[in-house]
Amino acid sequence: MMATNRRLAVDSSAVTCFITLSLACLHVTAFKSQLFTRLGARSFSSEPPIIYKTFYFNQRINHFGFLEDGTFKQRYLVADKHWQEPDGPILFYTGNEGDITWFCNNTGFMWEIAEELGAMLVFAEHRYYGESLPFGQDSYSDSKHLNYLTSEQALADFAVLIQNLKSKMPESPVISVGGSYGGMLSAWLRMKYPNVVVGALAASAPIWQFPRMVGCGDFYKIVTQDFAKSGQNCDVTIRRSWKAINNLSSTASGLQWLSEEFSLCSPLKTKTDAVIFKGWLQETWVNLAMVDYPYEASFLQPLPAWPIQVVCKYLAFDSKASDYDLLHGVSQAAKVYYNYTGSSSCLNTSQTATSSLGALGWTYQACTEMVMPMCTDGVQDMFEPEDWNFQAFSDECYSMFGVRPREDWAGTLYGGKDISSHSNIIFSNGGLDPWSAGGVTYNITESLVSIMIPDGAHHLDLRYSTDLDPPSVRAARALELKFFQEWIDKTKKRTGRSGTENRL
Amino acid sequence: MMATNRRLAVDSSAVTCFITLSLACLHVTAFKSQLFTRLGARSFSSEPPIIYKTFYFNQRINHFGFLEDGTFKQRYLVADKHWQEPDGPILFYTGNEGDITWFCNNTGFMWEIAEELGAMLVFAEHRYYGESLPFGQDSYSDSKHLNYLTSEQALADFAVLIQNLKSKMPESPVISVGGSYGGMLSAWLRMKYPNVVVGALAASAPIWQFPRMVGCGDFYKIVTQDFAKSGQNCDVTIRRSWKAINNLSSTASGLQWLSEEFSLCSPLKTKTDAVIFKGWLQETWVNLAMVDYPYEASFLQPLPAWPIQVVCKYLAFDSKASDYDLLHGVSQAAKVYYNYTGSSSCLNTSQTATSSLGALGWTYQACTEMVMPMCTDGVQDMFEPEDWNFQAFSDECYSMFGVRPREDWAGTLYGGKDISSHSNIIFSNGGLDPWSAGGVTYNITESLVSIMIPDGAHHLDLRYSTDLDPPSVRAARALELKFFQEWIDKTKKRTGRSGTENRL
Repeated sequence: MMATNRRLAVDSSAVTCFITLSLACLHVTAFKSQLFTRLGARSFSSEPPIIYKTFYFNQRINHFGFLEDGTFKQRYLVADKHWQEPDGPILFYTGNEGDITWFCNNTGFMWEIAEELGAMLVFAEHRYYGESLPFGQDSYSDSKHLNYLTSEQALADFAVLIQNLKSKMPESPVISVGGSYGGMLSAWLRMKYPNVVVGALAASAPIWQFPRMVGCGDFYKIVTQDFAKSGQNCDVTIRRSWKAINNLSSTASGLQWLSEEFSLCSPLKTKTDAVIFKGWLQETWVNLAMVDYPYEASFLQPLPAWPIQVVCKYLAFDSKASDYDLLHGVSQAAKVYYNYTGSSSCLNTSQTATSSLGALGWTYQACTEMVMPMCTDGVQDMFEPEDWNFQAFSDECYSMFGVRPREDWAGTLYGGKDISSHSNIIFSNGGLDPWSAGGVTYNITESLVSIMIPDGAHHLDLRYSTDLDPPSVRAARALELKFFQEWIDKTKKRTGRSGTENRL
Repeated sequence: MMATNRRLAVDSSAVTCFITLSLACLHVTAFKSQLFTRLGARSFSSEPPIIYKTFYFNQRINHFGFLEDGTFKQRYLVADKHWQEPDGPILFYTGNEGDITWFCNNTGFMWEIAEELGAMLVFAEHRYYGESLPFGQDSYSDSKHLNYLTSEQALADFAVLIQNLKSKMPESPVISVGGSYGGMLSAWLRMKYPNVVVGALAASAPIWQFPRMVGCGDFYKIVTQDFAKSGQNCDVTIRRSWKAINNLSSTASGLQWLSEEFSLCSPLKTKTDAVIFKGWLQETWVNLAMVDYPYEASFLQPLPAWPIQVVCKYLAFDSKASDYDLLHGVSQAAKVYYNYTGSSSCLNTSQTATSSLGALGWTYQACTEMVMPMCTDGVQDMFEPEDWNFQAFSDECYSMFGVRPREDWAGTLYGGKDISSHSNIIFSNGGLDPWSAGGVTYNITESLVSIMIPDGAHHLDLRYSTDLDPPSVRAARALELKFFQEWIDKTKKRTGRSGTENRL
């Protein structure tokens, strides 16, 4: 939420959006920041050092038309310390919506298995993020410049780059790896360009979080379950908190109390401020569900191990608690997420996720192809009821960018639930991760497999291993490595042609 | 050749092309008209009647960007007489570079099997051809308007249209069918959108006629073989004819003799005219190889059964024949192709193929994605030696359209020789068809199969059956039908999910 608000501040339409369409805004912006919120790198003494070289590849701005022949420099990082010439594999990270160095630093799994596989690591940046800006500083200036920010263009970038790498290392099988949106891209790369990658690991990749594929409420149900099982009445208190906020925000004194209780940097003045405040809290709970890891870690904000359990200690109220008591607990809980170290002097409701990621770019993508319906009912989840309203969402996108989302395009393009003819894709999901609602959580075929990590949050398997890892994530990583090895071995055994023909 | 010349006449760059780059032009234009030259419909009393309804579907002009939201009306034809509700299959013809009614009329195979399969037939027009013009009369006005003429956009059209049909007939499996470029699209549709079609028949589809996939001379070798085996010294005479033409065209009287001997509508005046004349003859031989069918048929021009054998009767010279004798034979041979019925008063060297097809559109496609190298050496083939020169080709395209071809894009996009991970595609090829040089002529996997029809010319299997069909094409059609039935049966048995998961 904050990023869109802040970065679109120069655009009055964004402000309008917050005033007139604030509920719909929540959907756009909630999704955005949820997908953005990833963990910062942890530093363990046993971790392999992250050393890479940075390269830039001339990519076409438009792969799908010939009128323009402009190019831009796509950044990619290469770590070849362990690569075994001439046919060691390449693990290719399909960069998501942000600076590629951040993904490089946060995908310890690749660094840990490089030596065993004799693999080269490549991390390719997604166009329009980090340094890979097709039109430099003008890339986000208007919808004309944004017109080449699509997943198809990004996949084509990856395919062309891999073909270029293969021209130098023709015997090296390539495996794509990615998490979250990067995991979706990893799976889609294998689906659309199986000639460039022999297999894909799609970690916590919600490829089914699209219209009519999964229930729009499933995502928030999982968030709610995480809180429900982490402390007594934890979800019940949060469910009750919205009405308490509504009660207090109906008066100026109540707004002032809330502002002080939550140590807000910008005091709440109006009911609209209160709506934004509730959206910020909702994102906070979602973010906690995504990063509910078993060890203390430094994220956007530093967090304790199993942070939801810590948060829930402040939320164990019975039905007799007053609005003030209850919201005091909520403010203590929010401060676990925003002020664990005690260094924040105030809480900023336009800040829930790292600013090093490309919030505006993702909002544009959500407003075009990445239409991911979300809804709440307040019964099966702990949030205020809100339907999914595609038309309102579309209108909001139009006011922001002058473009409208295409509701069914991703399903047609990427196959929706009908992907059984593809092969060699691992879909790993964390049971604690709300994005598992839109993930592939069952085996589709022998080579289109799902790995469920019950104790895992958002792509825990891609992170560095630690002593506190639950057995399920250790097993997941071992299974992923086994599949990698199988794909690599099969490639080496493959013969060019069978030689038979149906000659009539 | 003729079509590009005629239709680009308003553009001085096209004229320049013919003057300064005539040899390179031959490549562009030769390919174009070769792919265009198809057979007209034959009328047999036993043929099922061709009755269909015409519909128009609103397609996005640009599937791969969101700036423009313009649409155009894509034409498609539907024949549902034999369709068995609710789950009868749909045979979906992926239209190529021309008026869809022409393909509809020339794909008798689909009409003949509709009843047995209880199938609905759909023939979808390719954008920029026939009536499916994204910008109406302006569609070809400049490269800006041509920018959406790509195979990717056409495949997206097909996918979106099929999804629309499926929304009304969700239980009907769809099989794509196409010949030549339409066959390439049929295969690529299955590769890129396996969610919309359960299988594909790609008849005479040269999906490997791209750089570095097959030898650039293979195409003309097959043309030459067809002539070599159809009459004594037939290929030898054609090989000798080029020098004879060169000899005669060095003098004004020789040019006049040639013009009169060949009954040319426009007499040859210059050496450049003679180069165009040779290109026209070369295309004539190529076209004959493509349409060397076992029965009399009406094509662009009516032709006898096994036309190359008829042509070769005029070309059985020994080494003592004079240039005049030899070229007299060649002119008689050319008149078999251009004046079999005796109704032509003169031969037009700017006319080798039906004008109802979109020559300019295909030239643009050849100048962008469809880079299909061709070359001759005069030894293994019967043509004047000419190397493949990508740079000259690219320069020519730039002068014609202001765009340059991307040599490796089709290979990256569609997988080149590395397509083994796909499934359910039949590649049928005719042994007499020069396009089989770029076709898939061996089985890649159990479900990626090749059917070779030794006695078949260009997609003979897609035509109506006749009493004169060789056994090989009858067997091919039976095998194709068997695969169709298997795909349909498998779809009906398929269950949604296996239910298993790797829960760790």
